[in-house]
Amino acid sequence: MENTEIREFRVNYDKYGKLVALEENDNIPFEIKRVYYIYEVDENVRRGFHSHKHLQQVLICVHGSVKILLKTPQEEKIITLDDPKQGLYIGPNIWREMYDFTDGAVLLVLASEHYDVNDYIRDYMEYERHYKKGDN
Amino acid sequence: MENTEIREFRVNYDKYGKLVALEENDNIPFEIKRVYYIYEVDENVRRGFHSHKHLQQVLICVHGSVKILLKTPQEEKIITLDDPKQGLYIGPNIWREMYDFTDGAVLLVLASEHYDVNDYIRDYMEYERHYKKGDN
Repeated sequence: MENTEIREFRVNYDKYGKLVALEENDNIPFEIKRVYYIYEVDENVRRGFHSHKHLQQVLICVHGSVKILLKTPQEEKIITLDDPKQGLYIGPNIWREMYDFTDGAVLLVLASEHYDVNDYIRDYMEYERHYKKGDN
Repeated sequence: MENTEIREFRVNYDKYGKLVALEENDNIPFEIKRVYYIYEVDENVRRGFHSHKHLQQVLICVHGSVKILLKTPQEEKIITLDDPKQGLYIGPNIWREMYDFTDGAVLLVLASEHYDVNDYIRDYMEYERHYKKGDN
């Protein structure tokens, strides 16, 4: 799907455990300005329900698993994130929903911009209009 | 202890779960250039055993718990990280060791610089000499 990509990260692995390193403008294709993590989400919760005009993100499920619905007016895709070495890149103009968080799941997100309320589109109809205007 | 600090982050909390947001030059006191996470560490493993000449980091245990030993030639301190809303800032010239990772523990680290092998001091005697030269 346009503006989305699964990225496999290198794992540094020895008897002391595993380590995944994410570097801005390297295996993360933008400057990391903001990092957030979502946790203690009940299994029946569905969240997200928005797109971004400009923001780029990489999502990694560092513990447990979670499903991500990606959607455009033409296409729909469901990704299961369940491996800390796997990142899901989501660029602008993609509708996303997150659900099926397992008990103890932690979703880590790296973002290309500081929080900006004006960058969100939270209404699906508005998202469709924005998308079709060709701003994407 | 000098160059170290426990930081309490604000939790955005509702029926959809919890979210902690870390922003560079805001609740993280530096530019976030690198993010890494350590996981699948056996409970008997002790790792770290180094200091940094310049690097600043914030450590957060986003799942499970881990103990951090912080050490200077004058002082020694043990911090238990077991809460995703709590960050441990570690600045330059602090010796650190990490141990007692619980099953499934994930230690997230935000760093102020890209990886630089020359910024590490991995020998404790050398660390003491470096510290006492007053480079700290």
